Amino acid sequence: MNIEVANFLREHKSQLLQDWMTAMKKLGDERSLNIISNDLFENTSHEFIEAAVSNIVDSEKEYQQRVERITERAVKIGWPLNFLLTGLSELKTMILNLMRQEKNYTSEETVELITEIDKWVAPMSTQIVESYSNNWEKTVSLQKVAL
Amino acid sequence: MNIEVANFLREHKSQLLQDWMTAMKKLGDERSLNIISNDLFENTSHEFIEAAVSNIVDSEKEYQQRVERITERAVKIGWPLNFLLTGLSELKTMILNLMRQEKNYTSEETVELITEIDKWVAPMSTQIVESYSNNWEKTVSLQKVAL
Repeated sequence: MNIEVANFLREHKSQLLQDWMTAMKKLGDERSLNIISNDLFENTSHEFIEAAVSNIVDSEKEYQQRVERITERAVKIGWPLNFLLTGLSELKTMILNLMRQEKNYTSEETVELITEIDKWVAPMSTQIVESYSNNWEKTVSLQKVAL
Repeated sequence: MNIEVANFLREHKSQLLQDWMTAMKKLGDERSLNIISNDLFENTSHEFIEAAVSNIVDSEKEYQQRVERITERAVKIGWPLNFLLTGLSELKTMILNLMRQEKNYTSEETVELITEIDKWVAPMSTQIVESYSNNWEKTVSLQKVAL
């Protein structure tokens, strides 16, 4: 099943990016959207989807570097943590729906598919939360030293 | 389907709590587990599951207060944000597996069930991330004032 998800992602990357941007523009609050230009939104979204797909096509090291870069960029442009996490959850739903449109899965296969997609996204979610937490903790401890 | 999930949660709360604590003891790192006594772990876990179920049985206001309380407590005892988020994701998987053990669902029903459980957990996840973010931002801005 893992190879099936991987192939699907490779083949549908551009469509996923377009659908994801449309969904996030609907979901995002003013704080997340109005602060950046449309170009920056598109570039960051592109980087986000590339990082997510990278988990399947690139080496572990390259994947982690990509996730770190996109998280740093998101912190910098002021995207709240919840915006990124909602984005990941939206991506999971989109992939599942698209895959189910293309093929009939049994109940067992559907659960297996959802588990695969979850397993694929979970490390990215954990790493994003970790980076945000570290970033905050670093700021707090740097300020403490300065106090 | 929503009522089905609600009834299931009401009836299986104690079992879910026991299974959840076992799972979290396996998943948790030293930072999350060794810092607190077993009693405090059990009390906090109990409060966590109560807060999650509260979304279905209590009023919106009571539910939000419960989530706020458990998040404050988690921050206080030093549980990392990722520990709580992994806990929520574990809870979803446990509920789905238990429900599927008790009844045969078709592929359509399975997806509907997963969507229902997701919809039920998503606001708690968002609120927990929000509370952690606010807590960090408050600390950073209080320190800035003191600098």
